[in-house]
Amino acid sequence: MQDDFAQWYTDVVKKAELIDYSSIKGCMVIKPAGYAIWENIQAELDRRFKETGVQNVYMPMFIPESLLEKEKDHVEGFAPEVAWVTMGGLSELQERLAVRPTSETLFCDFYKNDIQSYRDLPRVYNQWCSVVRWEKETRPFLRSREFLWQEGHTAHATMEEAQARTIQMLGVYADFCEDFLAMPVIRGQKTEKEKFAGAEATYTIEALMHDGKALQSGTSHNFGDGFAKAFGIQYADKDNKLSYVYQTSWGVTTRLIGAIIMVHGDDSGLVLPPKVAPTQVMVVPVQMHKEGVTERANELLGRLKKVCRCAIDLTEKSPGWKFAEQEMRGIPLRVELGPKDIEAGQCVAVRRDTREKIQIPLDGIEEKIPALLDKVQNDMFERARAHRDAHIFDAHNYDEFKDIAENKPGFIRGMWCGDQACEDRIKEELAVTSRCIPFNDSEQISDVCVCCGRPAKKLIYWGKAY
Amino acid sequence: MQDDFAQWYTDVVKKAELIDYSSIKGCMVIKPAGYAIWENIQAELDRRFKETGVQNVYMPMFIPESLLEKEKDHVEGFAPEVAWVTMGGLSELQERLAVRPTSETLFCDFYKNDIQSYRDLPRVYNQWCSVVRWEKETRPFLRSREFLWQEGHTAHATMEEAQARTIQMLGVYADFCEDFLAMPVIRGQKTEKEKFAGAEATYTIEALMHDGKALQSGTSHNFGDGFAKAFGIQYADKDNKLSYVYQTSWGVTTRLIGAIIMVHGDDSGLVLPPKVAPTQVMVVPVQMHKEGVTERANELLGRLKKVCRCAIDLTEKSPGWKFAEQEMRGIPLRVELGPKDIEAGQCVAVRRDTREKIQIPLDGIEEKIPALLDKVQNDMFERARAHRDAHIFDAHNYDEFKDIAENKPGFIRGMWCGDQACEDRIKEELAVTSRCIPFNDSEQISDVCVCCGRPAKKLIYWGKAY
Repeated sequence: MQDDFAQWYTDVVKKAELIDYSSIKGCMVIKPAGYAIWENIQAELDRRFKETGVQNVYMPMFIPESLLEKEKDHVEGFAPEVAWVTMGGLSELQERLAVRPTSETLFCDFYKNDIQSYRDLPRVYNQWCSVVRWEKETRPFLRSREFLWQEGHTAHATMEEAQARTIQMLGVYADFCEDFLAMPVIRGQKTEKEKFAGAEATYTIEALMHDGKALQSGTSHNFGDGFAKAFGIQYADKDNKLSYVYQTSWGVTTRLIGAIIMVHGDDSGLVLPPKVAPTQVMVVPVQMHKEGVTERANELLGRLKKVCRCAIDLTEKSPGWKFAEQEMRGIPLRVELGPKDIEAGQCVAVRRDTREKIQIPLDGIEEKIPALLDKVQNDMFERARAHRDAHIFDAHNYDEFKDIAENKPGFIRGMWCGDQACEDRIKEELAVTSRCIPFNDSEQISDVCVCCGRPAKKLIYWGKAY
Repeated sequence: MQDDFAQWYTDVVKKAELIDYSSIKGCMVIKPAGYAIWENIQAELDRRFKETGVQNVYMPMFIPESLLEKEKDHVEGFAPEVAWVTMGGLSELQERLAVRPTSETLFCDFYKNDIQSYRDLPRVYNQWCSVVRWEKETRPFLRSREFLWQEGHTAHATMEEAQARTIQMLGVYADFCEDFLAMPVIRGQKTEKEKFAGAEATYTIEALMHDGKALQSGTSHNFGDGFAKAFGIQYADKDNKLSYVYQTSWGVTTRLIGAIIMVHGDDSGLVLPPKVAPTQVMVVPVQMHKEGVTERANELLGRLKKVCRCAIDLTEKSPGWKFAEQEMRGIPLRVELGPKDIEAGQCVAVRRDTREKIQIPLDGIEEKIPALLDKVQNDMFERARAHRDAHIFDAHNYDEFKDIAENKPGFIRGMWCGDQACEDRIKEELAVTSRCIPFNDSEQISDVCVCCGRPAKKLIYWGKAY
């Protein structure tokens, strides 16, 4: 992991059996252990979405070329990486169809007829689906030609309401990442250069990976009425006056699984936060050949099943082998039970994150294990936050900035004048990009741009990014 | 509905706000009311799958042309209706990619490396996704160019095990349809002519729609080792001898939503069985302007929320309008509460299926409403079964068969000699197809083929089909 983080990542993804490569370059097979993580992410996020009034729908996966072209910035941003369907059965299509890279244009085309009156607003729709972007460089979960995601698309009567929804959904993402994935994030706004094609403003949550690189982990866009004007989405207000709607979109992807790996993993493999772990506890009987061990281990499993997601390893493999497998797969707790434990009326819980061994009396195990899982979850978050905070560096001028970029992996905080030329220069010379203008930017660490030295009022989190 | 069933179906689909048409011919937008039904179907089926040991995965949506061509029967069956991606970004692809019409070839390509030893078997994988078939004639839910489905793909050490899994999954589908969708089905085997492209045997559940047409509602295929041989999927057994695996696949689609509409619907619109209904109970306050009515209705809603999925209609619309909306949307129970009801300590439940009005004391409402929902569910199933059974007709010779086909909508039971020429003639002359050879075929209604008069041992359910 220290030596070659990229190779370590690829190894974990394969050895923890999260994915397999497919015959199609840049498209992966998500295996049961990987898909079960996504199912947990989906279920929890979907629940949180619905609490805010989101309704799920399903849009077609194809976008006629003429539809994709309706919003100018949008098509410029996406056309270079679109996969095109040109044949249906044995005939050539009259118009090429894009396999959706994102569905703003489809939702707009739908809303155009669906929304007539102020009574139809707001529309707060979301879909879970796969999208395709014909990327040149691909990496499992982080950047693939097809990936799974959710995309929310909303329409509102006013700009204020659209802005409130944009920020609300970014908050849902941030809370979800911190609470459920034990992954601290910085919330902020993207610069003009980095914003979504067609958006008025893009907001982002940025996480720090173990190697000090940043990962954009979720985005929420306010479109203003730009798409509405391009597509003609108008509603009649109470006085029967026609106005354009204001729109937002927001999404997270299977990239979050990559983030979990790179924030929490270690040299032995995956480390899953308990809340997202498909299996939270693996019961491993020790000295299975001894009378009563398997039986008592099954009894223990039965008790634990009532309070957590757990399984038992009754295979013929050696305990050492089983331990290594459980570690590679990132299962948060291993519970060992051998003849001596049975005699002593206890079991031994081993934490995946710290490897700490804890003797726990079997009496009251139904309370102790969930409490221990909570503790693991909290400790993982605190450890990730401490690591992140220890890797935020302030730069006051270009020399400092360059030194940090070259020698200290992590976020760089530095003031920015607002001129895109400075962003371009930093990206070109140092391969560092502006990650976001943090919401919490009261701290002005200097009053001049870290690049050009001119007056600057905006604090930026910069970083090398996936 | 009597006059023009097809038009009635299209109207219900639109007016109950299940779908909208999109800019892409044959691709539909599934709206919140429609998608919520699919979410309930998914959740319940997925739970039943997992109880039998199914694990979910995700395969790429693209299939390289060379991969699709590996199994000869399979590609012949699907090639005419494949959508082809030929461009990625700005470049032409070296090899065309099919948008998956079904994923046997992808699973085989994956299993080829994933399965090495008998220890890797069985593999019982499933995915929830969308697939594309470039159909010429399309109808919402019943036949669309893109549809949502699940496809299970399994690999086994023996033919017996594969056959057992094939039948097991057909059983899961049949039980699900009867128990959850209140839709009786006939289980049976497809003839050679009607089986899946590449399968050794295809099994089906067939339901009867209200207009007397049949709908194939789920299928389960045993592939034997045909695909394994085409793709080279071998495992080493305990003696290290290499053998080919035996495979199955099985699927149901959003077509089930079409089935619900056509089995249970009536002239006022959709009628949803309570188990699958996103909203099971709609509380409608009557004389809302009277003091305390809205308040007491909300109280009632709060109590009902603990025992069923319910909502309240507090809009300004008239009660009559609200009733009509609830009926169109198929909500199983409406609970009316007005000043007189409050005085009498009761409410009035109105069944969507029978329109029966039932006065129910508010005391104990938490038990009464779920019991009533159960009764509605059971009654709907019994009514659908009675309708189905009243529309099964026996034919002993071609004249009888022709008369029934032309005058009596429903299933026709008739013996078959086993010669495909008879199936072809019946299809061509009468537009009737063999639906299945029922599992329960002990009843030999005659000993000669209903078409050619030669000796016949197989009973067939025939029908006009969607």
